[in-house]
Amino acid sequence: MLIGLRVFNHNISKEALRNFSFGKQLSCGIKTMASRPAVSGQFERAQIEDVIKKRFFYGPAFDIYGAVSGLYDYGPTGCALQANIIDIWRKHFIINDSMLEVDTTCLTPAEVLKTSGHVDKFADWMSKDPVSGEIFRADHLVEEVIEARLKGHNEAIGKAASNEEESDDKKKRKKKVKQITAIKLDDAAVQEYEEILAKIDGYSGPELGELIEKYDIRNPGNDGKLNPPIQFNLMFDTQIGPTGQFKAYLRPETAQGQFLNFSKLLEFNNARMPFASASIGKSFRNEIAPRSGLLRVREFLMAEVEYFVDPLKKDHERFFEVEDVKLRFLSKDIQLAGKTTIVEQSIGEAVTSGMVDNQTLGYYLARIFLFLMKIGIDPRRLRFRQHMSTEMAHYACDCWDAEIETSYGWIECVGCADRSAYDLTVHSKKTGHPLIVREQLKEPIVEQKWIPTIERKAFGMKFKKDAKTLEAAIEDLSMEDKAQAAKDKVIKVNGFEVPEELVKLELKEVRSNIRDYTPNVIEPSFGIGRILYAVLEHSFWIRPESTERGVLSFPPSIAPTSVLLVPLSSNPDLLRLVPALSSKLRALEISNKVDDSSAAIGKRYARNDELGTPFGITIDFQTTTDGSLTLRERDSTKQIRASEAEILDVLGKLTRSQIEWSAVLAQYGEFTSQEA
Amino acid sequence: MLIGLRVFNHNISKEALRNFSFGKQLSCGIKTMASRPAVSGQFERAQIEDVIKKRFFYGPAFDIYGAVSGLYDYGPTGCALQANIIDIWRKHFIINDSMLEVDTTCLTPAEVLKTSGHVDKFADWMSKDPVSGEIFRADHLVEEVIEARLKGHNEAIGKAASNEEESDDKKKRKKKVKQITAIKLDDAAVQEYEEILAKIDGYSGPELGELIEKYDIRNPGNDGKLNPPIQFNLMFDTQIGPTGQFKAYLRPETAQGQFLNFSKLLEFNNARMPFASASIGKSFRNEIAPRSGLLRVREFLMAEVEYFVDPLKKDHERFFEVEDVKLRFLSKDIQLAGKTTIVEQSIGEAVTSGMVDNQTLGYYLARIFLFLMKIGIDPRRLRFRQHMSTEMAHYACDCWDAEIETSYGWIECVGCADRSAYDLTVHSKKTGHPLIVREQLKEPIVEQKWIPTIERKAFGMKFKKDAKTLEAAIEDLSMEDKAQAAKDKVIKVNGFEVPEELVKLELKEVRSNIRDYTPNVIEPSFGIGRILYAVLEHSFWIRPESTERGVLSFPPSIAPTSVLLVPLSSNPDLLRLVPALSSKLRALEISNKVDDSSAAIGKRYARNDELGTPFGITIDFQTTTDGSLTLRERDSTKQIRASEAEILDVLGKLTRSQIEWSAVLAQYGEFTSQEA
Repeated sequence: MLIGLRVFNHNISKEALRNFSFGKQLSCGIKTMASRPAVSGQFERAQIEDVIKKRFFYGPAFDIYGAVSGLYDYGPTGCALQANIIDIWRKHFIINDSMLEVDTTCLTPAEVLKTSGHVDKFADWMSKDPVSGEIFRADHLVEEVIEARLKGHNEAIGKAASNEEESDDKKKRKKKVKQITAIKLDDAAVQEYEEILAKIDGYSGPELGELIEKYDIRNPGNDGKLNPPIQFNLMFDTQIGPTGQFKAYLRPETAQGQFLNFSKLLEFNNARMPFASASIGKSFRNEIAPRSGLLRVREFLMAEVEYFVDPLKKDHERFFEVEDVKLRFLSKDIQLAGKTTIVEQSIGEAVTSGMVDNQTLGYYLARIFLFLMKIGIDPRRLRFRQHMSTEMAHYACDCWDAEIETSYGWIECVGCADRSAYDLTVHSKKTGHPLIVREQLKEPIVEQKWIPTIERKAFGMKFKKDAKTLEAAIEDLSMEDKAQAAKDKVIKVNGFEVPEELVKLELKEVRSNIRDYTPNVIEPSFGIGRILYAVLEHSFWIRPESTERGVLSFPPSIAPTSVLLVPLSSNPDLLRLVPALSSKLRALEISNKVDDSSAAIGKRYARNDELGTPFGITIDFQTTTDGSLTLRERDSTKQIRASEAEILDVLGKLTRSQIEWSAVLAQYGEFTSQEA
Repeated sequence: MLIGLRVFNHNISKEALRNFSFGKQLSCGIKTMASRPAVSGQFERAQIEDVIKKRFFYGPAFDIYGAVSGLYDYGPTGCALQANIIDIWRKHFIINDSMLEVDTTCLTPAEVLKTSGHVDKFADWMSKDPVSGEIFRADHLVEEVIEARLKGHNEAIGKAASNEEESDDKKKRKKKVKQITAIKLDDAAVQEYEEILAKIDGYSGPELGELIEKYDIRNPGNDGKLNPPIQFNLMFDTQIGPTGQFKAYLRPETAQGQFLNFSKLLEFNNARMPFASASIGKSFRNEIAPRSGLLRVREFLMAEVEYFVDPLKKDHERFFEVEDVKLRFLSKDIQLAGKTTIVEQSIGEAVTSGMVDNQTLGYYLARIFLFLMKIGIDPRRLRFRQHMSTEMAHYACDCWDAEIETSYGWIECVGCADRSAYDLTVHSKKTGHPLIVREQLKEPIVEQKWIPTIERKAFGMKFKKDAKTLEAAIEDLSMEDKAQAAKDKVIKVNGFEVPEELVKLELKEVRSNIRDYTPNVIEPSFGIGRILYAVLEHSFWIRPESTERGVLSFPPSIAPTSVLLVPLSSNPDLLRLVPALSSKLRALEISNKVDDSSAAIGKRYARNDELGTPFGITIDFQTTTDGSLTLRERDSTKQIRASEAEILDVLGKLTRSQIEWSAVLAQYGEFTSQEA
C-alpha cells in the first residue's frame, strides 16, 4: 500500500505540482529519498516509544513526582525538532505571505471567553461514579460499552469481530472495557445499538444521560452506577490580582488575542484588506482523562493564522500558485452517506466544483499540504476531512481538518475553519468597540435605512454606563427589528426598553461612499505537538538487518542535528581536528554535534540514526595527513571521501535540499571504509 | 556622562576586549555607530511611549475590554524584535556552549512548588483598606509615606528636596502619595524615619505591620486605617483534571522543570559533567499592583540557563576566552557601606580578588555582558550588582544582577544566581529519586561511616508508603546525627522514631571508587521583556532637526525588518521591479518590507526610522534604465548608489555586521538624491 515516498524540496515548482500524483514516482522538481525502504508505518508502536524515551525527544512531565497525565516535557532532541518545525512554519506562512505576527497573553479575563462562547460551550460531558470517585467522559463511555456489548453478541452467535470498523477516535484511547462478555442480544437491541453508534458524536449531554439510564451503562471497572452527565468546562481557571475577584482562564486557543487586536493590526497594515495575523504560543485544555501521548495533552504549542477577508471577496490573489496541487479529500457529503472514500483532485477543481467553498479556504488547504510535505509527512497518510455540521465548533461555519494517519488512527493535526464574522461581531457588541473595516467606495450606494436620532442628554442620564453599548446595540438591530420598533414607538434591546422620546427611528434615503463591514476569518490552526508526533512516526523505520536498529529519517531541515562529527578513535591527533571543523560548520549555520565517546564507530552511527542525524563526518588518520574526510548519509549508510572544502560545500547544498544524496554519490563515488 | 557608544559586532576578538574601555573610543574589532548622536537617554518617556504605541511594538492586552494591568500583547514589530533577541540568545548561549535545551510545562503540580519553597516563600506582604477594598504592597507603602513625611519636614524647615537620593525601585512606581504636607518633625522622628528607609528591604511582614501601627501609616488616598499585612503568594493557582482535587500553579520560573529532568539530561549527556540545560518560555507572577509597563508584568518570557557543576570544581574551561572583559561592578561590600560606587575591572581580576566567587559565575557574568552588547544595550548604562544577603531569593547563596538604567531607574534585567545544591537536594529528598552524579574515582577514598542496616520487612510493614523517603532521610542524616542516634538506639527523623530493631547503625570503614555528589547550579536568568524595553530606550533618540522625528537605532541583527523597499512613486514601471528584489533579499535571508504608499519619500523614511529599519532601498526611474539602486542608512540618512548586485552584497555584509556603514560610504561615495 505504501510506497515510502519522501518529499523534502522546499521550493516545489508549479510544473512539478502539475505532475504530482500519489500513485507513481515523483517527477523532476520533487526529490524522493530513494535510499529509504518502503516501510512507513511497518513497526510496533513500542519500538518508536522506546527511541523517543531513550533519545529524550520527550517524556512525561514531573516524572519523579509520579507524572501528571497530559503534560509532557521536550528534551534536547524534541526541543530542536520543534524549533525547526516552527522555523519552517514561520517562513512558510508568516514570511511567505507577509503576515502580521503577534504574541498575546495566555491569561485571559473570564469576560472575554464568556463573550467568545467558550465559558458556555467549550466543554465535555462527564459522568462520575459516586462511590469510587472515578470520572468518565460520557460519550466515550457510552460508545465503548455499547461496542463491547455488540462484540459480545457477535461472539455469542459465533461471528468474527470486524475490528476494521472501529472508529478512529476510539482507537486512540486505552480501553476502559477490559473484557468482552459473550451475551446474545435480540435483533431489536442490536439495531438500536448500531444506530446509537452511528450517531454517537451528535448527542447532547442530557441525551447521553438518557442512554446511560435506559441501557444501564455502568462503570466498566466495578459495575457501579453512574451519576447523570454534567458539563465540564475544558478551560483552566485562575484569578488575577490579590482580591480573588477577577476571574480569568488560560486561553484554549491563541485566536482570541488576535481578534481583540484586530483594529490595531488593520491600522498597522495601513487599513488595507485582506491581511492575516499569526501567532505561535501555548494553549491549555483541561482534558478529562488524557491519554495517547502527545495526541491529547493539557498544555500544547499552537500556531494559528487568522486571515481577515471581505466576505464578498473570498478569492485569493495567489491562488493560481497552488491551484494544481492535488489533495486527498473526504467531504461531508461522502461521510453523510456513511462512506470514507477519498477523492483525489487538484484544489483548483475542488474549488470550481464547490466542494471547497472558496479560493481563500482552498489556498490555505494547499499551503497546509505543502508545509506538511516540507517537514516529512507521508502524503499517502494525509487527508483533508470536512466537518459535518453536528461536530463543528460553536464559532465555525465550515471546517476542513488535515488528518494524518498514525498508529492511533487518523488524527486531526490542522484545522482550517471558516469562523465567518462570529468572533469579531460578538466582541464588538460586548465592548462597543467596532471591529470593522471602512471601505471607501468608488460608486456611492443609495439605501433606505431606519436612522435613530438620540436625545443624548436624556439618554445618557437614563442609561448611564450602559448608554454606549446600548447605542451600538440599537445601531446593530436588523431592518425588520427597527421597523417594528418604529411602529411600537419603543425599542426593546439588551433587556432595556427605550421609548421614542429618547430615540426616534425614521426611514431615510442614505447615500454613502463608505461601506462598513465585519471581515470574515479563515483560520488555519496547527497543533504542533500532534504534527511532531506524526512526523516521528512517519520518519521511523527499522533496518532490515537488525530489529534493534531504528532510524528516524527526518528531512535535513528539521533534523535536531544536521551533522555528527566522529573522530575514529580518541587519539589526540584526531581529537584536535574536531573543534575547528565544528566551528566551520557552525559558521555555515550547519548544526553539528561531536561524538568522541569510546564506543565503536558503528555503534555511534546507530545511536545517531535514532537521533535522526542525516549526515556524519568521520575524522581518521588519513585526515591528519591529507585533510580528507568521509561523509556518511544516514538512510543509505553509504559514504564518500573528499577534501574538507568539498565536504563543506556538499553539506551546505544537502542541508538546504539543493542536491540529492544520489547525485553526490554519483559525483564522488562510494567510499568503503572501516564501518561494517 | 554618556557617550552614545554603540557596539554591535557579534564576534568580538580577544584583542578588542583587552582594549575595551568605557571612557574612550573603542578600538578596532568593536565597531561604533559614529553617525548616531550622543543622546542615549535624552528624551521624555512620553516620546518613546508614543512610538511604541503608534508602531505597535506592544500594547495593553484586552484593551477593548478595558485592559488588565500587567498583561501586554506584542504587535508585529515587538514580536519580530523579541524573536530576533531570542534567536541571538539561543546562538550566544545554547549553541555556543552546546547547552541542552528543554521545553517544559507551565502547569506545575502544587507538590513540586511546595518542595521548592515557592508555596511558602514566594510571596509579598500586602495591607488592605477594609473600607475601600484597596490593597497596598506593605513595604512600598511604608517607604513612600515615610519619604513623603521627610519631604514635608524638609519643606517646613525650608530645606530643598534632594530627589537624587530617591531609591531606584521607587522611581519606577507611580506615586500613591499625591501631596506633600509641610509639617516639621522633631529630631528623633527624623532619625527614626531615616533608619527605617535605610533598612526598608529587610523588614519581615510582621515588622512592617508594627511600623504601620507605630507610625500610623494609612491609605494615602482617603486616610483610612489599614489591616495588618498578610502574605500574598505571587503564583497563579488552578486545578488539573475534573475532580478539583489536584492543585497546580503556573510556574513562576522555568528552572524547576529543568531540575526535575536532571537525571534524564545527565544520561543524555553520556553522564559527563559539567553541563548546562536551558529553557525559553513563559512564566507567570501574580503581582499585587503591576505598573511601569513591561518592567513589572504578570506573564512574561524568560530565558534561563541551569549550569550543573561539581561543587569542588567551579573553574570553567572557557574562562580564558572572557577573562579580559571589563565589567562595571557594584559589590555587596560597597552597598553595605552605604555607597553605590562602581568598580570597573576585568572579570579575571574580579575572580582573582574573590569579589566574584568563582570562574563559572565569572564566565557567565561576562557572557551576559557580551550578549547585552550584541543586542544594543549601552555599556555605560549597565552594571552588575551583587545581592545583599537580606534580599536574596530563598534558594540562592550568591547572586549578581545585570542592572540596566532606564527612565525608571536601574532595573534588574538578568539575574545570575548560585542556587548551590538547594533545588536538587529538596526534590531528591521529597521524591526519593536521587538527583546526583556518580563519579568514578581514579584513587579510592577511605572513610569512617555510620552504615544503617535495615530490617526491610519489618521496616516496610511499619512505615508503609513512607518507608522509601524515610530510608533516604536516614541515609542523609549528618555524621553527628547518626552518632547520636546510634547512642540513643533510636533514629528520630521526619517526625518518626525508628528503633534500633528496625534500623541498626554501625561505624564502618568504607572504601569507595565512587563519589556521589549533588551538583551545584549556577543560573543566569533573563527577563526578555525587561531587556527588550531597555533596548528600546537605549536605541531611541530624536533627530535634532525636528522633535517629531524619533529614531530607533537598533543593531541590524535585532531590527524587526532589515531593509525597507521604497518605489519612488506609484508608477507601474517602478512597482513591477519590487517583487523580484524582495524575493532576492529573502533568499539571502535579509528581511524586508515594501512601502509603496503614496506618502512622500521623506515621510516614508521617517516612519521607518521609528520602526528601527536600518536600511532603505529606493527604486527610481534610473533603476528602470540602468538597474542601479540607492541604499540609505537610517542613522546618518546618507545614501550610496550602486548596481543591484553590489547593493545586495553590501547589505549581506552590513546585516551580518561584517562591515561598517562608514566604510561603505567611503567605498561608493555619498549619493545626493531626491530626499530632503
